[in-house]
Amino acid sequence: MASRGIGRPRSRASTSGLSTEEDILRAAATLFCEVGYGSTSTYAIAESAGISQASMYHYFGGKHAILLALLLRTVEPSVAVATALLDRGEPAEARLWALCSYDVRLLVSGEQNTGSLYLLPELSDERFAEFHVERQRLADVYAGLVAAVGARVAGGAAAEASWLVFGLVESVILRRRTGSVGGDVAGQIADAALRVLGVPEDRIAAARADGEALLHSL
Amino acid sequence: MASRGIGRPRSRASTSGLSTEEDILRAAATLFCEVGYGSTSTYAIAESAGISQASMYHYFGGKHAILLALLLRTVEPSVAVATALLDRGEPAEARLWALCSYDVRLLVSGEQNTGSLYLLPELSDERFAEFHVERQRLADVYAGLVAAVGARVAGGAAAEASWLVFGLVESVILRRRTGSVGGDVAGQIADAALRVLGVPEDRIAAARADGEALLHSL
Repeated sequence: MASRGIGRPRSRASTSGLSTEEDILRAAATLFCEVGYGSTSTYAIAESAGISQASMYHYFGGKHAILLALLLRTVEPSVAVATALLDRGEPAEARLWALCSYDVRLLVSGEQNTGSLYLLPELSDERFAEFHVERQRLADVYAGLVAAVGARVAGGAAAEASWLVFGLVESVILRRRTGSVGGDVAGQIADAALRVLGVPEDRIAAARADGEALLHSL
Repeated sequence: MASRGIGRPRSRASTSGLSTEEDILRAAATLFCEVGYGSTSTYAIAESAGISQASMYHYFGGKHAILLALLLRTVEPSVAVATALLDRGEPAEARLWALCSYDVRLLVSGEQNTGSLYLLPELSDERFAEFHVERQRLADVYAGLVAAVGARVAGGAAAEASWLVFGLVESVILRRRTGSVGGDVAGQIADAALRVLGVPEDRIAAARADGEALLHSL
């Protein structure tokens, strides 16, 4: 079996200038997003990364471990920002604006739309529990900030309002699929999130100014 | 090859009480959403629908044709409603509220979250062009209604505002993946869409009342 898995020998330095681990993640992201997770073999990933399958297993325990690493990169930076924002003294509106804006920029960054992997049926597997925990941590900070903003959503509690904001942010994943995420999409979505919560325009403008300053200071 | 594809003989009446075509679509939707499109074979679909592969090919030209049919069901009803709304005399706010509400209800209906198939890489194939054309028709009606509402989105044209509304509606696809689409999610999202466009609360309440009446009258 192993003889079938031999790719071309790995030179010491990556041809892309990245580490081997990064080469694997980059190759897998492209294949998962352009071919499909189910249709991608570990052999194809190793070949595309320019290494042997054996080398690949030195870095990742399997295809699921590579997917988990890619998924965590779509939430962990936002969780870190969210956690930092909890300790800040700025008004909740500015902090929520900053989180939305940062989160959208993270989701539209990178060569591949890795957020599109959120909808894979395979994510129900317990091996992806860490991703779900992190995404829930992020959702919890959103919920806390939305409650602090004092949402007034028709007939709804803060939990419902928080889902609207979270949905608005993550909608860039579907939007990016159609190819239209130019301009200041992060700022527009962050503004829209406050508008959904009934924040008046003058306070949205202030939250935007404070939120941008806040992000620069983190 | 054909001998491998023989399922159990098909009785005249479907065991589910649905037509054979519906049985195939239902079986495929479950497999695509719970196992994955790439990992599902036409054999598995036929077997799950209780028919032979040969029978299945009588109804659909292949797996892609089944996926196309499922995708069209997530947009065509909304396109029909959108087209009907264009000819109505009600204010644009009420018509947009009605379209958002109807569209969300369509996306959360059905046993499977077929909207999650929007993110499949396979959809870039030209065989899915009809779906993209229909989804664009729907997006165009949204854009027209948003422009008629007179959106005032910070630094953005009506096109940007329209994407925010469309994104808010389709965010239920991601939200449904997490399992939290209870209550009046359609009404809440339709209200939020108008709020994103800067419509004041009293006019949102009126749009909701008119929009609900409008949907009943279609």
